[in-house]
Amino acid sequence: MAEKTVSIETSMLSRNERLATELRERFRAHQVYVVNVLSSPGSGKTSTILATNERLRDRYRCAVIEGDIASDVDAVTMKEAGLPAVQINTGGLCHLEGNMISQAVDALDAGVGLDAIDVIFIENVGNLVCPVDFDLGENLAIMILSVPEGDDKPVKYPGIFQHAGALLLNKVDVAPAFDFDMSAYNAVLDDLNPTAPRFSVSATKGDGMDAWCAWLSEQIEAARA
Amino acid sequence: MAEKTVSIETSMLSRNERLATELRERFRAHQVYVVNVLSSPGSGKTSTILATNERLRDRYRCAVIEGDIASDVDAVTMKEAGLPAVQINTGGLCHLEGNMISQAVDALDAGVGLDAIDVIFIENVGNLVCPVDFDLGENLAIMILSVPEGDDKPVKYPGIFQHAGALLLNKVDVAPAFDFDMSAYNAVLDDLNPTAPRFSVSATKGDGMDAWCAWLSEQIEAARA
Repeated sequence: MAEKTVSIETSMLSRNERLATELRERFRAHQVYVVNVLSSPGSGKTSTILATNERLRDRYRCAVIEGDIASDVDAVTMKEAGLPAVQINTGGLCHLEGNMISQAVDALDAGVGLDAIDVIFIENVGNLVCPVDFDLGENLAIMILSVPEGDDKPVKYPGIFQHAGALLLNKVDVAPAFDFDMSAYNAVLDDLNPTAPRFSVSATKGDGMDAWCAWLSEQIEAARA
Repeated sequence: MAEKTVSIETSMLSRNERLATELRERFRAHQVYVVNVLSSPGSGKTSTILATNERLRDRYRCAVIEGDIASDVDAVTMKEAGLPAVQINTGGLCHLEGNMISQAVDALDAGVGLDAIDVIFIENVGNLVCPVDFDLGENLAIMILSVPEGDDKPVKYPGIFQHAGALLLNKVDVAPAFDFDMSAYNAVLDDLNPTAPRFSVSATKGDGMDAWCAWLSEQIEAARA
């Protein structure tokens, strides 16, 4: 039974890999840059996407795919901010998979059209474990940790910190109220993921967002070149 | 293939149910009260367990089973605080299952002995989705949300808030720095889970911990009667 489970899991993952390859080709064909946004619940995925859009929107048309267990509150927030948004409700599933993204991309294409979109942010389900295994065809996966969660999270959830192409530390504006050891945090990341750039930000207050958005813009341009 | 996956999942869950029943009987035989502690990463499971033990330890001998993807930092912290602790590393798994708890309980029994333990706290993997499906034979599951995560979490992750037998809102000492709408939070919980008591606490500063511990002590006594 253990073996059977493993082989089915492998088969699900390889099916997802095929879908991710198709998605990647589709995004490239339409010059859409895709960012898979990962974090715990409540670390600030929605507010980071909104604050990033604020700084990119003069140059790039952004859209959002929202993944949640239930509700459409984030998609409503995004639409209120003028962003085309498609909500995925996973039911009980703790991560997004390629087939869900394919359907959401179809919906965006039927709406504003993929050629009118430069950047898609995929807001994954808040979870530090399962989303790592599912490639969604993205150009970049970012991991957002927030200061109130504590500096020990990379030690406890190493996979997602290793996996990310950029590491954002959010809610730095409230750092004085928390006992967050920045040097301990950085020391673990130096070991786990020395190459991904790190940004200390406050999505709601604005600290550090310009540096993050400047770097992201460079990645978008490099993908187009 | 979809059907096969479902039937294996059902079989895994029913196997877990059998293990949970065995665990429940084992806990009852030794008069051990078990609390399954659920939250996102960084909401304060460890600090809540430590602060609860501080207030219970004159009356009850507590022990801890620590579930993490990786590392033993929490078990080390618990042992430093004088609590018998067993660490489970799940590898990639996003929740604890009955078989892991059985092994951890064996280890506690081989150490201090189950008859010397009154309360076991199981610190689950930080995750608002997957742990709900796995009964660990506990008397009580508690859900800890922390203020910095935001008041919309019950809307987005309803299952775990419905499942919990007590709802703790942690880090209320930093509430002034965050935009947490308490009436919105309570309105959703009134709908999702009107019966579970709610406690506003700061595990590190002590706010509300006496009320929570008084209620928990009542539950422990009621289970013994």
